[in-house]
Amino acid sequence: MVKQEIKINWLENMAFEADVSGHKITIDAGEQVGGENRGPRPKPLLMVGLAGCTAMDVISILKKMRIEPEEFNVRVEGDVTEEHPKQFERMKVIYEFKGENLPMEKLQKAVSLSEERYCGVSAMYKKAIEMTSEIVILN
Amino acid sequence: MVKQEIKINWLENMAFEADVSGHKITIDAGEQVGGENRGPRPKPLLMVGLAGCTAMDVISILKKMRIEPEEFNVRVEGDVTEEHPKQFERMKVIYEFKGENLPMEKLQKAVSLSEERYCGVSAMYKKAIEMTSEIVILN
Repeated sequence: MVKQEIKINWLENMAFEADVSGHKITIDAGEQVGGENRGPRPKPLLMVGLAGCTAMDVISILKKMRIEPEEFNVRVEGDVTEEHPKQFERMKVIYEFKGENLPMEKLQKAVSLSEERYCGVSAMYKKAIEMTSEIVILN
Repeated sequence: MVKQEIKINWLENMAFEADVSGHKITIDAGEQVGGENRGPRPKPLLMVGLAGCTAMDVISILKKMRIEPEEFNVRVEGDVTEEHPKQFERMKVIYEFKGENLPMEKLQKAVSLSEERYCGVSAMYKKAIEMTSEIVILN
């Protein structure tokens, strides 16, 4: 096992500063629940962690295939329950590519390798919620 | 269901910029895997999301109980597998309080309410991994 650790320190009201190996992120609630929107809500960070994990896999695999997109974005859409505890029930990952020389079968191969073999965030979330994905080539 | 969405855009190499409702976070890999450490790794963001979610619950509940700590930190320790897909197998949440008038039974009540009723991140993770917690009063 590899140990990981993070810490968040209370600033005031609903604002906290996270320390992630020296990188600082302020998180906060929205005004409607007593926060001041000084940073993102905590829950969407679960989608950022997923997007980052799989995107780093995909761009590394594509590089080995000698494929370099001009643009590459990953969007994650999540559905959160309305009842407490308000939690994700599903997430959809949308891989968006733009550029020349982007054979769909290679993109699919890179995405599948991430989803099935390398992305540990995806692997963990699949045990708890419904996960789907889509590949889009932008014009 | 409530919809949530985030997007990350590829910057270069392993660096991506996340947009979370207008708040920007740069994420990156470490030098040993082709990144430049321009921001946190994606995986620890799963622990930041958890810490933030439960910390906001706890500080809100304590406020209703008219308890205000001088200091309040939440640390999360996670164990990640060494084999692909490298994923969390357990997380431990450590709630650290400092100040006068911090009755342990009230702190325990606030933490339990978050863990069992309000924190949607905790609720989701419990379906996938082992979750434990601890309350510490700092001198």
